[in-house]
Amino acid sequence: MTPAFEALQKELKRLPGVGFRSAERMAIHLLLEKPEAAKRLSDAILSASERVRSCSTCGNVCEEERCSICEDVRREESGSLCVVEHVSDLMAIEKSGAYRGRYHVLHGKLSPINGVGPESLNLSGIAKRVKDEGVTEVILALPNDVEGEATCHYLTELVESDSVEVSRIGFGLPSGASVLYADSGTLKSALDARKRY
Amino acid sequence: MTPAFEALQKELKRLPGVGFRSAERMAIHLLLEKPEAAKRLSDAILSASERVRSCSTCGNVCEEERCSICEDVRREESGSLCVVEHVSDLMAIEKSGAYRGRYHVLHGKLSPINGVGPESLNLSGIAKRVKDEGVTEVILALPNDVEGEATCHYLTELVESDSVEVSRIGFGLPSGASVLYADSGTLKSALDARKRY
Repeated sequence: MTPAFEALQKELKRLPGVGFRSAERMAIHLLLEKPEAAKRLSDAILSASERVRSCSTCGNVCEEERCSICEDVRREESGSLCVVEHVSDLMAIEKSGAYRGRYHVLHGKLSPINGVGPESLNLSGIAKRVKDEGVTEVILALPNDVEGEATCHYLTELVESDSVEVSRIGFGLPSGASVLYADSGTLKSALDARKRY
Repeated sequence: MTPAFEALQKELKRLPGVGFRSAERMAIHLLLEKPEAAKRLSDAILSASERVRSCSTCGNVCEEERCSICEDVRREESGSLCVVEHVSDLMAIEKSGAYRGRYHVLHGKLSPINGVGPESLNLSGIAKRVKDEGVTEVILALPNDVEGEATCHYLTELVESDSVEVSRIGFGLPSGASVLYADSGTLKSALDARKRY
């Protein structure tokens, strides 16, 4: 409606998962309905941008050189390294409590069609980490899609050796789900991943 | 994961329609994946907060004393004033092209349960506007729910007179929808709003 309003709406629309209407709603909220929130949000962005950085070892968020997970020596004892696409995936796995080893965050997946090659991802240090940190298993926790598949192939070439096993997380019916409502792709994965009972 | 990260996530979560997970995803996007977007967003918020204000007449967004709709004299000729809950509702009606009169934005609806009384809404000037601007019809474009209903009652008491008609927008089946998939509330509204064919 006004140039400054439209400029803000445009920037909000760039956030992941935010469309035109949501951005409009957010801008109205910040400018008219809760003006005190605008200053607070802008301060939080600037302050976090100054302090938060990528862990130099794994790519997780941190405020020091290395994140708390990489600094935790007990994590090294497991000998396993879990590769994820995004920091949010790492956070989800941490919350589940199902894994207590180290991580490596790629910040994306290989996608030649979108111009994402190995050089765009956080891949450079991974082979060295596997060697230096005595990793015995690399767990690929990447998405169940074509690009996830391609990234898994590439990573396997990069890190597999006589002393390092590469595994990929299981695919199939999510916890609590029924066969009736699962989509065809999930059912195909589930049948392919069947195990002797 | 870090204090500054969590502070940013908390502020993002306050935006309308943003949950815990979306806020986490947005914070990672701003801090690690697109750090140049963080500065741009923060600048856009500060710049818009300085420039954008609420129109002193209707409550729409504007950068002057009065918004472009209130300044448009042709809008006055229609004699109608459309009351909406939010600026986004005004924008949606404008985009539809179905209305060319003036607006009045309440910035909320009456909701005693949430502590929203008449004094929390942009209601103070509406009776004076109706008199001064020669309004002949007040169109209530408020939501089809209990709070929308209460707000309509209150507004009718406030503005109805021999020279001012109050109407409320129609409720029923949305354009392109079928009876089969409509919820019970919509079907009840649609039956109540039936017209001789």
